[in-house]
Amino acid sequence: MTERKEFRDLAEPDAARDAIASLDLVPEPESVPLAEARGRVLAERVDAGIDVPGFDRASMDGYAVRARDTFGADEADPVELDLVGAVHAGATPEVTVESGTCAEVSTGAVMPDGADAVVMVERTDESAGGGDGTDRIAFRTSVAPGDHVMAAGADIAAGARALGPGTRLTPREIGLLSALGVDEVPVRGRPRVGIVSTGDELVRPGDELDPSSGEIYDVNSTTIAAGVAEAGGEPVLYPHAGDDYAEMERLLREAADECDLVLSSGSTSASAVDVIYRVIEERGELLLHGVAVKPGKPMLVGRLDRADGGESAYVGLPGYPVSALTIFRTFVAPAVREAAGLPEPRTATVEGRMAVRERYGEGRLRLMPVGLLDLGDETAADGPAGARERPLVYPVDKGSGATTSLVEADGVVAVDPDTEYLEAGEPVTVQLFSPDVRPPTLLGVGEDDPAVNRLLDRLENPRYLPVGSREGYRRLRDGVPDVAVTAGPTDREVDDVVLGEWRREWGLVVPADNPEGVEGLADLVDRDLRFVNRPTGTGLRRGLDDALEDLAAERSASPGELTERIDGYVLTLRAFESPVRRVLAGDADAGLALRETAERLDCGFVPLGEQPVAVRAAADRADREAVASLADELDDDGIATLIEGIAGYSA
Amino acid sequence: MTERKEFRDLAEPDAARDAIASLDLVPEPESVPLAEARGRVLAERVDAGIDVPGFDRASMDGYAVRARDTFGADEADPVELDLVGAVHAGATPEVTVESGTCAEVSTGAVMPDGADAVVMVERTDESAGGGDGTDRIAFRTSVAPGDHVMAAGADIAAGARALGPGTRLTPREIGLLSALGVDEVPVRGRPRVGIVSTGDELVRPGDELDPSSGEIYDVNSTTIAAGVAEAGGEPVLYPHAGDDYAEMERLLREAADECDLVLSSGSTSASAVDVIYRVIEERGELLLHGVAVKPGKPMLVGRLDRADGGESAYVGLPGYPVSALTIFRTFVAPAVREAAGLPEPRTATVEGRMAVRERYGEGRLRLMPVGLLDLGDETAADGPAGARERPLVYPVDKGSGATTSLVEADGVVAVDPDTEYLEAGEPVTVQLFSPDVRPPTLLGVGEDDPAVNRLLDRLENPRYLPVGSREGYRRLRDGVPDVAVTAGPTDREVDDVVLGEWRREWGLVVPADNPEGVEGLADLVDRDLRFVNRPTGTGLRRGLDDALEDLAAERSASPGELTERIDGYVLTLRAFESPVRRVLAGDADAGLALRETAERLDCGFVPLGEQPVAVRAAADRADREAVASLADELDDDGIATLIEGIAGYSA
Repeated sequence: MTERKEFRDLAEPDAARDAIASLDLVPEPESVPLAEARGRVLAERVDAGIDVPGFDRASMDGYAVRARDTFGADEADPVELDLVGAVHAGATPEVTVESGTCAEVSTGAVMPDGADAVVMVERTDESAGGGDGTDRIAFRTSVAPGDHVMAAGADIAAGARALGPGTRLTPREIGLLSALGVDEVPVRGRPRVGIVSTGDELVRPGDELDPSSGEIYDVNSTTIAAGVAEAGGEPVLYPHAGDDYAEMERLLREAADECDLVLSSGSTSASAVDVIYRVIEERGELLLHGVAVKPGKPMLVGRLDRADGGESAYVGLPGYPVSALTIFRTFVAPAVREAAGLPEPRTATVEGRMAVRERYGEGRLRLMPVGLLDLGDETAADGPAGARERPLVYPVDKGSGATTSLVEADGVVAVDPDTEYLEAGEPVTVQLFSPDVRPPTLLGVGEDDPAVNRLLDRLENPRYLPVGSREGYRRLRDGVPDVAVTAGPTDREVDDVVLGEWRREWGLVVPADNPEGVEGLADLVDRDLRFVNRPTGTGLRRGLDDALEDLAAERSASPGELTERIDGYVLTLRAFESPVRRVLAGDADAGLALRETAERLDCGFVPLGEQPVAVRAAADRADREAVASLADELDDDGIATLIEGIAGYSA
Repeated sequence: MTERKEFRDLAEPDAARDAIASLDLVPEPESVPLAEARGRVLAERVDAGIDVPGFDRASMDGYAVRARDTFGADEADPVELDLVGAVHAGATPEVTVESGTCAEVSTGAVMPDGADAVVMVERTDESAGGGDGTDRIAFRTSVAPGDHVMAAGADIAAGARALGPGTRLTPREIGLLSALGVDEVPVRGRPRVGIVSTGDELVRPGDELDPSSGEIYDVNSTTIAAGVAEAGGEPVLYPHAGDDYAEMERLLREAADECDLVLSSGSTSASAVDVIYRVIEERGELLLHGVAVKPGKPMLVGRLDRADGGESAYVGLPGYPVSALTIFRTFVAPAVREAAGLPEPRTATVEGRMAVRERYGEGRLRLMPVGLLDLGDETAADGPAGARERPLVYPVDKGSGATTSLVEADGVVAVDPDTEYLEAGEPVTVQLFSPDVRPPTLLGVGEDDPAVNRLLDRLENPRYLPVGSREGYRRLRDGVPDVAVTAGPTDREVDDVVLGEWRREWGLVVPADNPEGVEGLADLVDRDLRFVNRPTGTGLRRGLDDALEDLAAERSASPGELTERIDGYVLTLRAFESPVRRVLAGDADAGLALRETAERLDCGFVPLGEQPVAVRAAADRADREAVASLADELDDDGIATLIEGIAGYSA
């Protein structure tokens, strides 16, 4: 086994932050066309180069006059002036307004010489022409000099400070820059962040995967690249490096030459980490190795030499996806944003309250993955108006290797090394995985079921954890989720409300045309068939075990005697479709499945029974808007459309 | 004058919303590469196509064993097993673990046949080899079947629901899609929004501008295009259309053929609006003309026929920039987001409280432009922890024609037609112009001064309104801003704290080498010189008027008698640089200016005096963090660097 680096002297998290802050990621400013400037940050102050407007501008449709000529005019006693011409927006005035005359102007027109005010058309009348054929206009109001005229430079004058350095360009700033005629905007550069993923086992999404040789798709590269872009950086993906020193060195140096920051991520194996460690030590400088944080202990911080004599910053992220994203979000994204000149978005954190008591005591900072559920309660009347009760926060701990934690958790809570407990109800700050993460409005748990999947598609932003009927019902009792879906009988007492119910047919999936002639459970027990099961706690398994109990009773045997004789009884697969796929692949002769799945995937099916599937809301959540929307989908019509065309389903 | 449409029957704002909601903007779904999917919205549910992991996977570095072989092992009494090989991540196992043997595995490796658990390397020792040269490993702990192994499909199983339709793709969802090997993602289309700006006077930013013919830069096209992109649409800019019917028709039809929604904006002139009105009536359908909202009365909603027989939606926006952005944000952006499948960002609104009393009573919905100032006060202890007092909200009313309102206001408050007053302190909801608008941390008002501009560049996100010394000091007294900058003496009593002070030299700017030989104020009075002034209320003007008073006293005349004789005394320009530019352009012989500006722009300068410039904080704001940061910049060293190299400035 490769000699491995021990993380004996773990750095404190603040030291890691300081080390990263000591690296220089700030790229050169650049100039971008105005049309591409949205979201960028001004590198320098922009002063107005021109007066806006560039001329004295009529700000109403009407008549340009000498204000003095209108003095005394009112509805009862209008003043009449000779109309000597017209000026439209975008035209050079070809008329001068002398005393006693006026000129028609449209909004935006240049004020003709001599005129110093505009009378809006609504307060005028075309009058009878004078004897000489000229038109005359009657004015039913008087105006003061400057009325309805915007003087040149009155909006913003040439030389005035328009926008300061560090301003983020949103549509309105783009509008002001347009008014100034700016079409190339000096902005902060986006730090280029190279991502080198390591590990022989990684395959790019879209490429062919060979699971038998342990290949998996590379999750970290794309996740971190998206995180870099979100933080205002420009991600650059490099090809995978294996555990080979020369190849790793070549890739890291290439990335260092081209980027402000290089991140490595991907492999969790110590040998790949060792190779990186050596490259950094030999081709740069290692500032820090190992941080007292969970997850993220193997984090590296350093510098890489460039061919041009300069340096690039380097951070090594842990290998598991949730760990990598957590460390990126906590330590690296702030540095990328800082280099890009962007503040942390206001939506990057959420103030929540613990839904459950959580124990901790590992003596290092824990970045605990958590899910959020916003119950949308109004707070007490004495809080700030419109403020809401903090959302519920519950720990998500599927092990750091689980990719699904990425979407089952919404962010992390930093738990201090000295904290032993977080109490239920205790306020906590959740660092969201992304400012765009939108915590779900409804949390469901329970049985994995195709009609449930269809139901979820009809809801706005739900979260559903298919933990099985038994565990789902247990969680409902413990008070975190809104809803549990159970299949088959329930054994507990929970204060719940059934929102809707349907029935589903279950049995054995067998290859098409049932080549082994399987007729029922007895065949599994008595014949040499390879079986695949579902986990304890699922409704399907409960159905199977109840049926096996009946069979055992018939035979005056114990259920255990029967199950011992089923080859594969202990082989449980996680999703309702998995046993069917196993049979399809020829790796099993029979599996526990729904008629729906067997028929949809063109397999044979041996029916064993029907069971009810119930959608149950916690009684104290039944009035929530999101639960009410769910209930609406589960009225008689709703259930009819929900199960329509699903084989073996009935209301 | 063109016959104009009267807006006699204004539609209610809700009717306008309904009319827009009745239009179909939803584009076809599309498929995008994973690397470009961030921020997009899933068009359909994504189920897992593969098991993740695709094999039983070691989740620790260590040894794969048959768990049963380790039963009973502990520190005191280790179990030894023969090492029969190794499996690394990304490799196909070439070894089988029989009873009594083990195989080295790295994290991520495929579990070799026969093994059902992993013992982490930290709980093992390499043992003395057996006599036959095989290695033996000592295990100091027992494991259960499945320990440190992630079963195939345990993370997510093939067929399981991975992500629901409508999910916005943030880094974590991109991670999950990567794990599933998805590299092309089915997403909602982005509605294409064509923008046709109208008006002969409009010039694209970057093109040459002729102000004498009334040309101005087109603000709305770029502003609205940025707003469309922000709302998840794809903006398409079309060339400007003048007021010509045939040209307008051609452009609108082209845009309708290519887009889901066509917006027109730009001209405020009634004739351009009339032309659009006719095109929509003749080449489509007008649903609504005129809405009871201020600003935005001339809004149009309709449909445009396409060459292919289909239809495009159409909304006509008002012409003034703030009005156009307000109506876009209030009525159009929600429809674009809806069509793109995006929710309104949480940051799109801010709960604030009125800083002042505001009267209203026009009988139609008012979308009042407002500025925000977040004082960052903690609320009372009984509010939700971490909640803050609502930011101050103050009306910004520079007239809807002012482009600078775009950046002096942060958004709008919808004031109900029945509301007569908004009381100071009353809670209001501010619809920000953009979810990315970051309200300023400091609000300053007062004199326009180059050292102030430099000072502002050193602060984080300040807002400064150069309203002149007198108005600035008045506003400080009225309690909205944090800080006022005054030049020259102040006449009021305000409870303020001077944070810093410097002196500046002022006088007359004249052309380089002073060709007219101007020596002082008397020349302006006694000779035939064209002068340009600064507005009443600025410190510079105060200096001039005080000096004129002295001159009048010398001559035993009234100041009015002197000012009457100055050609251009009433011609005031808005920014401190403007008179200098006027002199530079040859349009004036002398102007009121700072030595700084005259020298910087290579003009001559006739000194008339010095005046103090003071940065004053409202006493009750002096402890604010942003004010303290400002004070830090104004210590002796700060002022020294602030005025360093500015001609005529002294501490």
